[in-house]
Amino acid sequence: MANGIERPLDLLNSSKGKEILVQLKNEKQMVGTLLAFDIHVNIVLDNAKEMANGEVKRSIGLTFLRGDTIIFISPASSVEKK
Amino acid sequence: MANGIERPLDLLNSSKGKEILVQLKNEKQMVGTLLAFDIHVNIVLDNAKEMANGEVKRSIGLTFLRGDTIIFISPASSVEKK
Amino acid sequence: MANGIERPLDLLNSSKGKEILVQLKNEKQMVGTLLAFDIHVNIVLDNAKEMANGEVKRSIGLTFLRGDTIIFISPASSVEKK
Amino acid sequence: MANGIERPLDLLNSSKGKEILVQLKNEKQMVGTLLAFDIHVNIVLDNAKEMANGEVKRSIGLTFLRGDTIIFISPASSVEKK
Amino acid sequence: MANGIERPLDLLNSSKGKEILVQLKNEKQMVGTLLAFDIHVNIVLDNAKEMANGEVKRSIGLTFLRGDTIIFISPASSVEKK
Amino acid sequence: MANGIERPLDLLNSSKGKEILVQLKNEKQMVGTLLAFDIHVNIVLDNAKEMANGEVKRSIGLTFLRGDTIIFISPASSVEKK
Amino acid sequence: MANGIERPLDLLNSSKGKEILVQLKNEKQMVGTLLAFDIHVNIVLDNAKEMANGEVKRSIGLTFLRGDTIIFISPASSVEKK
Repeated sequence: MANGIERPLDLLNSSKGKEILVQLKNEKQMVGTLLAFDIHVNIVLDNAKEMANGEVKRSIGLTFLRGDTIIFISPASSVEKK
Repeated sequence: MANGIERPLDLLNSSKGKEILVQLKNEKQMVGTLLAFDIHVNIVLDNAKEMANGEVKRSIGLTFLRGDTIIFISPASSVEKK
Repeated sequence: MANGIERPLDLLNSSKGKEILVQLKNEKQMVGTLLAFDIHVNIVLDNAKEMANGEVKRSIGLTFLRGDTIIFISPASSVEKK
Repeated sequence: MANGIERPLDLLNSSKGKEILVQLKNEKQMVGTLLAFDIHVNIVLDNAKEMANGEVKRSIGLTFLRGDTIIFISPASSVEKK
Repeated sequence: MANGIERPLDLLNSSKGKEILVQLKNEKQMVGTLLAFDIHVNIVLDNAKEMANGEVKRSIGLTFLRGDTIIFISPASSVEKK
Repeated sequence: MANGIERPLDLLNSSKGKEILVQLKNEKQMVGTLLAFDIHVNIVLDNAKEMANGEVKRSIGLTFLRGDTIIFISPASSVEKK
Repeated sequence: MANGIERPLDLLNSSKGKEILVQLKNEKQMVGTLLAFDIHVNIVLDNAKEMANGEVKRSIGLTFLRGDTIIFISPASSVEKK
């Protein structure tokens, strides 16, 4: 059950310092620790890894990711592992 | 018959706490419980599931979904099951 | 003959409560009863049906449709049946 | 020779009530009588017909057409028939 | 040598009444006499011709062309004939 | 070593009157002398040449190029000839 | 562990004068020394190299790169070499 989410960005605020999964429009995913975000949904990840088809493609560490390339963002803890 | 919908976002407001179906531009769907939305149609879903061709592809739990990736949103109760 | 249309959105205003055809950028159509719209051409349809190649694909009931996915909107009464 | 066109929208203003050809980004054309337009180049056509490869595909009557789907608009009287 | 061009739109201003070549994003070109333009680079051409692969495809006369479909605009006098 | 570049547009300002290479989103390049630019990165080139795969395709002289078609701009003197 | 990043652009600010990796929407990468950026994420790189499939394609020196072509930006020191 999710509490305290009044506005969409509240979910990002409560995810700061935690691992998130970011689905990109180019069919890839990024996982990493959310350090910062702004109203454009630009985000900074630490320990970011680029993934495709469930496999790590590149470890890219600190990353600034443009908001307009993102489809969705989920706390990694809530994503069901298959 | 639908009552009380004066502006498009009124439908989203009356769907808070209920399950919705979200059709994405990338041909996939998301279903989940609507927790929050803003004027950009960014939304937060709880218990979100990503679907393609009528099958659940991933359970992704809490999800922030960018409005510019969305085609339409419907209350799940109004979608006819085939 | 069309009267009383000074601005483009006047056509949507006079179509409230009536069935409309919506042509989407993704090559599909939606038909349904127009309940609400805003200046972004976001619309809410009741009894919406998604169509492709002249066939109903899904009955999706109440639907919020993003304006930026739309090519054109016509009152269903004015569309010639083939 | 064209007179009295100081700004691009002047051509649309002088085409009100006349038949126009609208070239869409999706490779189709619309022909119809221009009833209204706004600064986003959203337009309303009466007696609109959707065309592809020089043939009428659908008669869709009254139509609201989003400006961001348009490449160009010409008065039908100025388009050379082949 | 080009003189008196301080801002990009100065080139369009000095091309009024002259023939220009417009390269479109859809791989086609338009040639015609520039009658008007605005800050969105929407333009009106007289005696416009749509071209593809160096051949005239359609004579479309007076034309309103949306700025967001344009890649570049050149005075026809400066384009080298091959 | 590059000095005096505080903001991105400073590089364009210091390139006025010099030859630049412009990489377009459509996979082509333009080379020419930068005459003017604005905050949308619309630019005017003199003696512009359109290139593809390292070959000159068209000499188009004076050209107004829309900023939203551009990927990057480099002073030609800094591009390594292969 | 990353400190002092309150807002996404803070990562770009702390990367000035350092080598960064820029992933572009067109599947290519740029590496170079970050000299400047603005709120649109337009950036200027020195000693820029365009890369594809892990190989240098072109050395392009000083480069102005439009923000809307970028997916992500990482300090080169944080990208794991394979």
